[in-house]
Formats: sequence, structure tokens, C-alpha cells
Amino acid sequence: MYSDGRVRRNAAMAKEESAWPTQNTSAASNWGFPRILIPVARNTNPILMTRIFAILLMLNLALTTSPPDVLGDEGMYLFNDLPTKLLKDRHGFEPSAEWADHLRLSSVRFNSGGSGSFISSDGLVLTNHHVASDTLHKLSTPERNLIDDGFLAKTKADELKTPDLELNQLVSIEDVTNRINAGVKTDASAEDAATQRRAAIAKIESESTESTGLRSDVVTLFGGAQYHLYRYKKYTDVRLVWAPETEAAFFGGDADNFEYPRFNVDATIMRVYENGQPAKLDHYLKWNRDPITDGELVFVSGNPGRTQRIFTVAALEFLRDDRIPYVLEYLRRKEILMQQFGLEGKEQTRRARDELFGIQNARKAYTGMLAGLQNPQTMATKRGREDRLLQQVGERDEIKGLASAWKEVNEIQAEKREMLSQSASLRSTLFDLAQQIALLAAEDKKPNEERLRGFTDSSRDSLLQELLSTAPIYTDLEQAKLADELSRMIIQRGADDRLVIEILAGQSPGERAASLVAGTKLNDVAVRQALIDGGLNEVLDSDDPMIELARKMESEYRRIRKRNEEIEERERQAYAKITEATTAIEGTGGYPDATFTLRLAFGTVKGYEEDGNSIPPFTNFAGAYEHAAQHEGQADFDLPASWMKSKGQVALDTQLNFVCTADIIGGNSGSPVVNRNGELVGLIFDGNIQSLTSDYIYSDVQGRAVSVAGVGILESLRSIYDAKELADQIGR
Amino acid sequence: MYSDGRVRRNAAMAKEESAWPTQNTSAASNWGFPRILIPVARNTNPILMTRIFAILLMLNLALTTSPPDVLGDEGMYLFNDLPTKLLKDRHGFEPSAEWADHLRLSSVRFNSGGSGSFISSDGLVLTNHHVASDTLHKLSTPERNLIDDGFLAKTKADELKTPDLELNQLVSIEDVTNRINAGVKTDASAEDAATQRRAAIAKIESESTESTGLRSDVVTLFGGAQYHLYRYKKYTDVRLVWAPETEAAFFGGDADNFEYPRFNVDATIMRVYENGQPAKLDHYLKWNRDPITDGELVFVSGNPGRTQRIFTVAALEFLRDDRIPYVLEYLRRKEILMQQFGLEGKEQTRRARDELFGIQNARKAYTGMLAGLQNPQTMATKRGREDRLLQQVGERDEIKGLASAWKEVNEIQAEKREMLSQSASLRSTLFDLAQQIALLAAEDKKPNEERLRGFTDSSRDSLLQELLSTAPIYTDLEQAKLADELSRMIIQRGADDRLVIEILAGQSPGERAASLVAGTKLNDVAVRQALIDGGLNEVLDSDDPMIELARKMESEYRRIRKRNEEIEERERQAYAKITEATTAIEGTGGYPDATFTLRLAFGTVKGYEEDGNSIPPFTNFAGAYEHAAQHEGQADFDLPASWMKSKGQVALDTQLNFVCTADIIGGNSGSPVVNRNGELVGLIFDGNIQSLTSDYIYSDVQGRAVSVAGVGILESLRSIYDAKELADQIGR
Repeated sequence: MYSDGRVRRNAAMAKEESAWPTQNTSAASNWGFPRILIPVARNTNPILMTRIFAILLMLNLALTTSPPDVLGDEGMYLFNDLPTKLLKDRHGFEPSAEWADHLRLSSVRFNSGGSGSFISSDGLVLTNHHVASDTLHKLSTPERNLIDDGFLAKTKADELKTPDLELNQLVSIEDVTNRINAGVKTDASAEDAATQRRAAIAKIESESTESTGLRSDVVTLFGGAQYHLYRYKKYTDVRLVWAPETEAAFFGGDADNFEYPRFNVDATIMRVYENGQPAKLDHYLKWNRDPITDGELVFVSGNPGRTQRIFTVAALEFLRDDRIPYVLEYLRRKEILMQQFGLEGKEQTRRARDELFGIQNARKAYTGMLAGLQNPQTMATKRGREDRLLQQVGERDEIKGLASAWKEVNEIQAEKREMLSQSASLRSTLFDLAQQIALLAAEDKKPNEERLRGFTDSSRDSLLQELLSTAPIYTDLEQAKLADELSRMIIQRGADDRLVIEILAGQSPGERAASLVAGTKLNDVAVRQALIDGGLNEVLDSDDPMIELARKMESEYRRIRKRNEEIEERERQAYAKITEATTAIEGTGGYPDATFTLRLAFGTVKGYEEDGNSIPPFTNFAGAYEHAAQHEGQADFDLPASWMKSKGQVALDTQLNFVCTADIIGGNSGSPVVNRNGELVGLIFDGNIQSLTSDYIYSDVQGRAVSVAGVGILESLRSIYDAKELADQIGR
Repeated sequence: MYSDGRVRRNAAMAKEESAWPTQNTSAASNWGFPRILIPVARNTNPILMTRIFAILLMLNLALTTSPPDVLGDEGMYLFNDLPTKLLKDRHGFEPSAEWADHLRLSSVRFNSGGSGSFISSDGLVLTNHHVASDTLHKLSTPERNLIDDGFLAKTKADELKTPDLELNQLVSIEDVTNRINAGVKTDASAEDAATQRRAAIAKIESESTESTGLRSDVVTLFGGAQYHLYRYKKYTDVRLVWAPETEAAFFGGDADNFEYPRFNVDATIMRVYENGQPAKLDHYLKWNRDPITDGELVFVSGNPGRTQRIFTVAALEFLRDDRIPYVLEYLRRKEILMQQFGLEGKEQTRRARDELFGIQNARKAYTGMLAGLQNPQTMATKRGREDRLLQQVGERDEIKGLASAWKEVNEIQAEKREMLSQSASLRSTLFDLAQQIALLAAEDKKPNEERLRGFTDSSRDSLLQELLSTAPIYTDLEQAKLADELSRMIIQRGADDRLVIEILAGQSPGERAASLVAGTKLNDVAVRQALIDGGLNEVLDSDDPMIELARKMESEYRRIRKRNEEIEERERQAYAKITEATTAIEGTGGYPDATFTLRLAFGTVKGYEEDGNSIPPFTNFAGAYEHAAQHEGQADFDLPASWMKSKGQVALDTQLNFVCTADIIGGNSGSPVVNRNGELVGLIFDGNIQSLTSDYIYSDVQGRAVSVAGVGILESLRSIYDAKELADQIGR
């Protein structure tokens, strides 16, 4: 299970994090929570953890004998640099340009965090239920619980308009490395270089948006060695067509999350509209209506959120010793907070559930990542590989000057450590809105190229889409979150900190949160619109307590953000050198770390061995019913009423879930899995427990991507969800 | 709800903590977990928190106008220094020596953490279900779930022998301050003073044990200004007679915990045996079989675990800024760990539940305490009071030298901060056993007076009772806990720490935990017995991996413990001076901070105002059924089948729970509430949300102790639990 939209709050933040490696240094995430999309660690149970270590042990042996460039089916390739030779050599398959273009244009990025695909000429989009659940939550009310009950629009008129989704279709990629680098003076300080680079990026993006009308993002690749301009067609009128019940989508709950075999229909269908009509699409995926076969070559086209495979040992140590423990502490804190809020009653449980689920998902992922990094053998392997590389670099005169980059990365970690807990944000919807509105007003006064990332002309529409969302804001939940954030800020900055004293205004965290939430008018979209329209004067004049608070904190926020961006820039420069050195030693043909942009992965449908057992690649509907029976009375193992009622009609041997070796990570949730013919055969929704180290190390010995079978989705639509018509339309 | 036995693992630890103020400096608790008994903060919900702040605000007004010595019915008085004048003046009641002796001898301390009382001449003991739940858990199996299903012994032969309980009856108190102080040289360094004091204590305790055969504990009072010798008769053959279902005992669960009105039968009955026969008791409480009346004067005789009312502002700041955040982080970590373990299946849920409950209880208590301390007004009040006191001290020549004590306490906090995360323990049953056995073997070689606290001759029996407990040890749970502790140790000490590297032995935390748990034989009581009998040679020769690990960590453990004890000693000396100064200014007649020893509190049965509503003092059985109906379908709000079945028989207007103003805190759980006649009228089981600041500040404006009514217990026995015979016997 992957975390999704609920952890990336708006386009500005999403954009910031698409530049690599920003994991904690971007100002938007300086409060320590991962807004990126991450795979979930199944469990902290040591028995299960042992399975991870077993695979790490195998990797260790593999790596120490020969450090290969890529391992097995490793790789998340750029669509403008596909591994054609490798595919031909290994799988006898040569993707044509048309094949690749069609797949790219049929792929969709959920800007809220996740992937999807077009599956009909009239705008249908397939993604995961857990990618859509943020939207399902926003569309739900105490009376209409889409999360519990699912949804089916019987006609187009019944489709529900979503409050703030933005879907992106990748139209073109252009290498702009030279233009960016030309904008940065060679002798610039890190601070100046960051400013100059940001200006160059803003200029290219704005020019592109102006000339093409397309969303235009410059993406930092290979740790700053390359910059590519990605142009997207945006869809912002997105409507809900079908969603199953959570009991079916997340069958087995936390206990089965990250496990295999699985039996989940983690799927949801939406439709994009243009000018009030279903969008007419030239590119969409046909569906293969036959079962998948064992050993079949498959491709995954989606948007992996972040990997850290380029990281030096020092950077991994920072993760292990500082950043991940810090983030885990934060996540546990928020997990308990949301649980406690939910105890207040059924409606509170409903309000907190979606966010709680996202937090639990992230907490599990980080727990698993930490477990891998705390294995002394993992680090020994990484260190051995780095030592050999450094030795080779030192032996070659033309690149030995690059060796200093490793030292620079090392030094930068100490600065990141120091910045880790520095924050001037109070994570809650209302404060986030106030902060973004205040920043927007101030940034608008500056020339486009001097603005903070996320506030340039080219980002404006996506930002407004978020700021003017009609999603409900629950004041009781906001108050609980704000009180907790204030309490946390007292601990982090100290009770005697000038800013803390000013923020609390003599009140306790609980009192202050209550008065802020009671006093602000920002839950009203019209009020937000008026503030945005009124610009800086309106914001400066506002006596809304949340806006006043955001303004109080603004200079400290900017100070921290600036410092983090400077650190980020220096790290970027160092990794660009490391990439140069590595390429000189190991050659090209690789792939950059994930950046939440479209990538192609490939793999084979294949089971695996675990504790002496053969885990077959497929499951079917019969297995789902058996699994429910085996776990009777255990929470999260009830199949929904629709399933129990329809058992007689379902073709029980239909494939339901399957695994393959493709290299995926969080953000790939909702990615289509296609065959050689470019036909959809599955829908990525999870990685198994053995794949959770893939943030920094890939393995296909046991690591597997988990998909819903396309035929399984069709069968559930036909025989369970009374949606035969929909099933007949899609993928034709 | 109060935390109980599960957080105090053995007599040695319990004893250490009876010396004040050891909250984090005692070696046994250097890993940061509160073994003391603490009241639970109801909720982190800011709406509820606001209620705490409202009461703090009221206190603030009260305190700033006149800083009284004690507030309302404040006080946890020593049985050898009862507030007779105050009781006579305020309530017109003069307790006779016989009255007090009878109450003292009818009171019971659960050495596992909690209070109780004798309620029949043939050994029946009443306590809380949540004090007994640790024992219920240990007596349960997958087939016999006493936690879920409750228990009733139809005959004495059916009573279940508990695996490791020790009950204490306070036989006498003797002031030994002069003897202790005579043993400490005036010019001794803190380190030497600590050693000398420990030696003096050990000598007194051992002599007393030898001459009387009674458990003999020297208790540090008034922060070291007084030392009293407490002698206890011990009961170690304790059998379970009756327990209700958790659904009845903890009706309303986490959501209702710390709330009022309440409807809980949080009661359990045991019986003490001597020589295989029910103990014949001269002192036990008669029960009043009439309803309690509003405004009635009542007394609570129990063992409050710890208060910190003497704390200076600097000490409270350390709590607020360092210690409580640190402990909360630990508790949240363990709460998630236990929850995740429980997801593995029903049996795992059962195994983890009791510990999970204790952790949640503690987490809520600390959250509430922190909320109070983070209120700027609380600290301003405390600071104002301290400033006035210091000014008065400075104005009086004979005591102005004592003013330095505040500065010393301040300096000591920095050292405590530094020691906070230092630990050489791995919290789990198997490691704790190994560590205690290894320490015991080494300590046994030393003269009695040089031994660590908890390992002296007088402590030996209680320690063995714990080490040789027949309670089941679940290896899967042990493995999960140990893996988590190892992972935490890597973070705290660093992956490159010599001891960490040695402990991990090249393995990951998960692997290492698995091999330790698989390799150790310590789950076998006979193996533990043999190691203890064999002494140091046996331990040194042992190739049990857990024993080997404990030995590897022993010198570091001793180093940390020694350092903490030295800090503790200096703090004790400073607080003794502060007590001297305070007494000089404010007079005597007060009470020392709680030390998990027998105290008498008093108060009146009284409702209170909340948000404009009058909360009546009593609830009844009818209310319980209504409460269940109002919360239908919500977790933890189902009354058990026994209740639903018996609704027709129950006298619905019988009192079930009530509140009074008595000054209690964690550890008072299970305390009898008696009337002027010394008759039992209730059983303490909780404090309401407004009482949770009472760790450092008492108030009876809204703060209330919550009890099960004696008549409610009798009615449930008669009409619900088919235990009419038992009901007729008790308290006669």
C-alpha cells in the first residue's frame, strides 16, 4: 500500500518535492513529515522483519561479489531515455516510438500524489481506491459515507465532481540542462547559485506556460546533473464514477498491508471533463480481457515519488540516525492523536480515518526503511561499494577532483541534522491555507523569477486549485491538530522562545487552538477568494486570527526555508559531481532517482520462495472468500455485504491480484501494468514486504510489485457491483 | 483510571522508587518509562483540554491572591502524623487511635502497584479490576480468557493461585531520621553520602527484618528531610476469587477513561492464604450497606505512588521541556508496537492487551500533565509562589543560607537532562530477568550494606517472588519487544557505539532478537532457580545468550545507575533544605509528597459544575444501561452479556459510581473509601479529567476522585454475577 494524496497538500508543495533530493530540506517539509509517496513497511513484527533481513543478506552476497550497475529488472526509466537495448537483449522486445508515446499519453499523474491511466475514449480514468480515498473522504458527509459504502454513478449525470483534483498528462520532455546551467555563474556562492538556478527555472517554466498553455515543470534529475522540462496537459474537472467499499479495497486492513498473497480490489474509476463534457481522448489503454500468464513480460508506467539510490553512506547514516527516527516520532505522535480524536464518536472516527490511514501507511514504510538501514550488513555493503568507487575515482586523474563531493555530502549532513527540527509551520488545513495565502500575497509583489518555488506564474493555477478547494474543513479536527502542533512547537523551540511566547499569546495550546479556530473565517471559500483577490493589502489589513498568526510566523518561515534551500543547492551540486564520477566509472544507460515524474519500469510476472514455500504469482476470487472465512471475527477481514450476496454469481477462478518484478515505489500507486501490446493487464497497488528496502536498494529475489488484475476489476464490476455496462465500456 | 502493577516489574524496582524524588534518576527507570502509578489524562482532545485549563485558570486566581499551605481537602497524610486538628476544625471529626490503627491494618498494598483492603475475616481482599488485570492476564490462556470473560470461584477449591503477587499490610512506622543521618558524614561528597546513606538504610532494614521477620523498608520523606522505617506483613499466597468482564470493569473504554459520570464495576476480589489456609484476619473493613449521601465525609486509605508538589520551577521546567516529552515519545512508540503486534491475530491481541492498556493509560496521564505544564499561566503561578518564598527566605538570617538549594536543584536539572536517554537495559521480560539474575549473583558476593538497593537481604524474598514467577512468557511478544528495544538503542547510543556493535553481533535488531529469544532458556522457572541457586559462578559459566548479553551490559548499567544515584542524592539533599526553609516560613502540619506508602486522604462526596452543568455525585445501574444504549455500535460501549441478561433482576436505582474531593493519585487505585465509622462505602478507581494536574497541583474546584460504590459492587455480585453467597459474606 502506498501513501497518497492526503500527504501532499497542494501543488506548490508537490512541485517543490519533485526536485531532488529535497526529502527534508524543502521549506514545505521542514516540519518533518514526508509528503512524498512511500511504500509501506508491513510490520514491525520481528518475525516479518527477519524476512527483510534475509533478503538483505542475499543482496549482500550478490553485491560483494560483483557490484552491478543495475540488478535484475531494476530501473525506473525516463520516457526520453528508454532502455531499448537492455529490453531487446534481455527480453527480445523492442518498444517502438509509437508504443512508448501511446503509453505515455495514456498515463496520468494525480497531482495529489499517485498515478493512473485513461481507459476509454470518453475520459474514464483508472486509479487505486487508496489514491482516490482522499477525494472520497472529501466528498463524504455523515449521511453519505463513500469510504464505507462505495459509489456507482448509474448515469453521467450522477457522477460526483471532485473538489480539488488536478490530473496531469505528460505531453513532452525537453532537456534544458544547458539553459539552466548557463543561468548560474560558475563562481557563485551556494546561496547565489540557488537563487540564480531558481530564476532560470522560473523563466523557462513561465515562458513555456505562456507559449504552450501547458503546465510546465523543470525537473532536476541525477541529483542535479540534468534538468528536463516536462509539459503537462491538465485536467481539473474530475468526477467520481465508481468506487468499491473500503472493506473490498483494503480487505485485510493493516494486518495484510504489505503482505502477499492478497485479495484486494484497490481500484476506483473517475472521468475527466472538458468544458462540462466528458473529455474526448485520443490515447487510452485497451484492456486485455484474457488472464495474465506466468512469466509474462509486463511494463509499469507511472510516477514513482522518490528513491534514494544515489545516496552516499553518510547520507544514509543521516537517514538512519536522525531523519527517519525524527519522522517516525512525528508520525507516531500524529497516529495516536488521530486515534484519540476518533474515540470521541462515530462521526469523529469518520473525519479522522483518511488521515489516520495515511499516517499509518507512512509510519509503516519508515519503520521498514529504518529496519533495513539498521542492519549492519546493509551499511557494510553500501560502504564497500562506495569505497571501491572512491578508489577507482582516485586512480583516474581526470575525475579524481570529484572525490571531494563525497566529503561535501558528508559535511552537509551535519547541517541537515541541525535544521531537522527547525520549523515555523503548524500543520493543519486552516493554518496551511493562511500561510499559503499570506505567502502568495507577498510573492505576487515580486518579479516572477524571484519568487519562491510554487508561487511563480506557471504554478499559480495549481496552487489556486488547492487554496480554493471546496472540501469540507472540520473545525473540531482542526482544533485537535492545531493544539497538538502548538504543544509540539513549545517542545521544539522551547517555552521561552520569543516566537512561541508571541504565538501562544499567554494561552495554553488548547485554549489558543480553540480561539484561533473559532475566530478564523478561512473555512469559507469566498473569504479565501477575497483575500487572494485583494492581494497583499487585503492580507495586511486582515484581522483574521489565522492570517495574523501566519504573518507573525512568516519571516521565521522564510529564514528556515532559505537556509534549507541553500543546503539543498549545495547537496545538489555535490550529487551532480558524484553522478559525473559514477558515470565515468560505470558508464551511462542508467536511470535517475525517482522524482514523481513519469517513468517506465519493466518486469516479469513471477512468484517467489519464502520460508521454503512457493508463493504463486496469482490469487483469485475463491481465495478472497477463503481468506475471509479463515480470519472470521478478526477486524478488517470482513468482505462487504455486496461480496457475500454475490458469491453465487462470481466466476470464482477469475484472477484477482498478481505480482511481478517491476521496480516501483510509492507514487506508482494506480499505475497501469501493460503487456507487450500496450494493453492493460493490471493496476499497481502495493509492494510486498521484501520490496520495502527499494527506496535505497532494489532486489527481485523476493521483492515484488502487487497489482489488481484487470480481469479481476472487470469481474467485480460485472458480478458484484452491478456495473456491467461500465465493465463493457472500459478498455475497448 | 490508574496505571498499575504491569509497570512495576519487581520488588527491587518498586522499592527504589519509594525513595523520593527518583522519578527518572533511579537506575531501574533510567530507560525512561514511568514505573510509578499515575492518574490518566483523559484525552488530548483540545475541547477536553480546555477544561483542564479552565481549572488551572481558577487555581491561578486562587493562588495569586493567597498562597495557602494546603487547598481545600488537599493532603495525603502519614498515618503517624494525621491531621487531627484540621479534621476536627473543618469537619468536627476526631479520629481515635483505634480508628486509625484499624483502618491502617485493614489496608493492603499490592506490591505490583496499587492498593486494596481486607474485607472479611477469612482473607478476602478487594481491589480494582485494573490493578488485578496484570494477574488476570498472567492466569489467562487462549482457552481461558479471564480478561474477556471474568471469573468466579464457586468454592474455595476453585480459587486460582496467582503467580507472583505480594500483598503488604503496614504493621508499624518508626522515625529513623537520626539514625540515617548519623551514618552520613557531614563533609561527605554526594557520591560518598549516597553510599553511606544506602549503607545506613540497608543496615536498618536488615536488622529489622532479622529481628521481626517483617518486610522492612526505609522510606524517604519530605525530599530527604525525614526517613521512616515501614514494617509490613507480607502475603504471597494470593488467590483469585472473583473478577467481572473487562466490558463491565472498563465500560466506555479509552473514550470514557478519565470522564465522569461513569458506570464501571472496576473491582476484583482475591483471598490471601497462609500455610495453605485462608488467612485469619483480625482487621478487615465492615461494609456499609446503605447508600452514600451527598456531602458525606469520607476517607481514603491507600498508597499514592508519586506526587511532585515540592518541585521547584526549574524542576517543573525539566519535566515540561525534557522528561515528559521524552517519556511520551517512548510511550507512543510502545503503544504502536503493541497495537501492531495485536494485528497479527486474536491470540496476539490477547497477549498484548494488558500491556497495551497500561501504556495507553500512562500516555494519557503524561499528555495531560504536559498540557498543564505547557500552560503559561501554570508556570507563572508556580514562579510567583517560588519568588515570594525565596524573598521571605532571603529576609530571614537564620535560613537565608538555604536559598542556595533552589540554585542547586536548577543545576541538577541540566545533569538529569544529560542522563535522560542514557540506558543499558532492553525492556522485555526475558532480558529483565537475565539482568536481575546477573546483578543478584554479583551483589550477593558483597556485604549486605554495600549492595545495590533492591538486592539487600531484606529485599531478597520479594525479588525472588518476581524472578520465579510462573506467569507465562510469550516468546513472540518478547521477540517483538526486544527487536524494538535494540532498534531504539541504536538510535540512542548510535550505530557506531562500541556496546551497540557488541550487542548486535553483526545482526539486525530483528535477527538478534530472534536468536536471543530462541536461544535463551530463561522462560523455564527451573532454569532461573538453578542460576539463582548456583550464584555468581553459575552465572559466569552460563552460555545462555540472554544471560551473556546481560553480563555484557552490566558494567555500563552499573555506571549509569551509579551516576543517577549520585544526582539523586544531591537532589535529595537540596530538597531537604527546601523543606526546611518552607517549613520555617509556612509552618508544619503538612504532608510529604507521595512515596507509594500508606496515606490517609479525606474529602466530601460532592458533585461539581462543568460548562454550566451540574454533575451529580452519583450514578446508578439504570444509567449504565442508558449509557450503553446511547453509544450503541461504538467500540467499548457494549455491556457484557451477563448484564444484558440480568437487567430484569438488577435494582436499577442502586448507586454504581460516585465522586469525592479526596486528594488521590495513581497508586491509590483499589483504595477503600470509608466513612466516619470506618465502614467501607466505596472503592477508588479513577480521577476525573480536572484532577490530572494533581501530580504537581491539587484542586477540588472540579477535581474529583471517582469510586465504585460499595453497594454497587454488592448489587452486581448478587444480581448479575450469580455470587449472592460471596456478597453476603463480605464486609460482615
